[in-house]
Amino acid sequence: MTRTDNPTAAILIIGDEILSGRTRDANMYHLAGELTRVGIDLKEARVVPDDREMIVATVRELSSKYTHVFTSGGIGPTHDDITADCIAEAFGLHIDIRDDARALLTAHYEGRGVEFNEARMRMARIPDGATLIENPVSIAPGFSVENVHVMAGVPNIFEAMVAGLLPRLTGGKPLLSQSYHIDRPESAVAEPLGALASKYPDLSMGSYPFTRNGAFGTNIVIRGQDGAEIEAALLELAALFPSDA
Amino acid sequence: MTRTDNPTAAILIIGDEILSGRTRDANMYHLAGELTRVGIDLKEARVVPDDREMIVATVRELSSKYTHVFTSGGIGPTHDDITADCIAEAFGLHIDIRDDARALLTAHYEGRGVEFNEARMRMARIPDGATLIENPVSIAPGFSVENVHVMAGVPNIFEAMVAGLLPRLTGGKPLLSQSYHIDRPESAVAEPLGALASKYPDLSMGSYPFTRNGAFGTNIVIRGQDGAEIEAALLELAALFPSDA
Repeated sequence: MTRTDNPTAAILIIGDEILSGRTRDANMYHLAGELTRVGIDLKEARVVPDDREMIVATVRELSSKYTHVFTSGGIGPTHDDITADCIAEAFGLHIDIRDDARALLTAHYEGRGVEFNEARMRMARIPDGATLIENPVSIAPGFSVENVHVMAGVPNIFEAMVAGLLPRLTGGKPLLSQSYHIDRPESAVAEPLGALASKYPDLSMGSYPFTRNGAFGTNIVIRGQDGAEIEAALLELAALFPSDA
Repeated sequence: MTRTDNPTAAILIIGDEILSGRTRDANMYHLAGELTRVGIDLKEARVVPDDREMIVATVRELSSKYTHVFTSGGIGPTHDDITADCIAEAFGLHIDIRDDARALLTAHYEGRGVEFNEARMRMARIPDGATLIENPVSIAPGFSVENVHVMAGVPNIFEAMVAGLLPRLTGGKPLLSQSYHIDRPESAVAEPLGALASKYPDLSMGSYPFTRNGAFGTNIVIRGQDGAEIEAALLELAALFPSDA
């Protein structure tokens, strides 16, 4: 992985439905792309079940290791939505229905003539001292506690929360990348690529094999923070493997 | 998460390209479904970069916690394919080009008139004592060391390896599930569902909100190992929320 001075991050996906294979997670892929764009290096991702002990331990571990931790899932109104309480426990904070979150939800439900029942009230449970993250889709907010940012699992809500949150965080230099397509199998590319990679220690050179119409090919992705250096490496690569086109 | 006596598992996805957002992982979702089918409970998933220290530490930790660990990625011919060496290091095993793996690859490349070069030879590096996992797609094998099963990241190869490997492992009772569709928002369903869930401690009841044509709805999934018990809970749920259809 390219070494940078950028802030680091982990993402924690919470939910039995991902581990049972019922639901295919979309949030990790979305956030990975957004973090690269703003210059925060995603170093690790984890998926854990709706299990209190495991969520608390994982949040503590990731929070101590990385600049930011982003969580997805478990902040809805049902009995298995335990993320907010687990975050409070992880940081030793008091948690209850908080006035600011309740006010947001009250206005939302009253405006629509919908009963603000006890289950919906659960979504106003926010740890003391947490900063709310706006939810323009369905109002029930996410929140940040220290370096942990707690968001909903439903993909369109998660994406809206990420869009509101990221400008608040300080990113580093964005990671740049260039791709090069070679119509040869990865095993024919590996040796020259390895030599090129050791010539450019500040860049990372990934190689991604594929098959198309029965023929093997390889995409090379060169990543780094210095665009001129990437360009120089790309020219050397193109000289080694001239395009067939 | 439903508690069972089934074997447990973790999946470890290895590769910078997933964390940078370049590639959307498909293997976690595929394996999660296959494990549920054969009665192995997936308890955790992780994604780590192509980083030796992190791979070694994570393999050791997951191997000690779960019945099985499945890895994906990092066993190709290029300089950043370091998984096989990391697994050897994690278990303190010697690793080199092994005769059985080399023989497979030699036959494959000679049969196609392709040079068996040094990079391709890397794919025959297998830790001492490991059992090979067949690769019917591109021959270069995966392998199992103790309870860790090391497979390729390319999805069609990963899936073929999983298909060959799983019948060798002893599964438990498959997890059964039934779904029920309710045309009401999750927050209207949460309280009765919570009460029903506490009546059936051996089942898990997941609730998955969605919007369709601007209306909120909720899918309930009841999971467990006893089909009759799931059926009984489903009937109670249906009585609480009669279908509009």
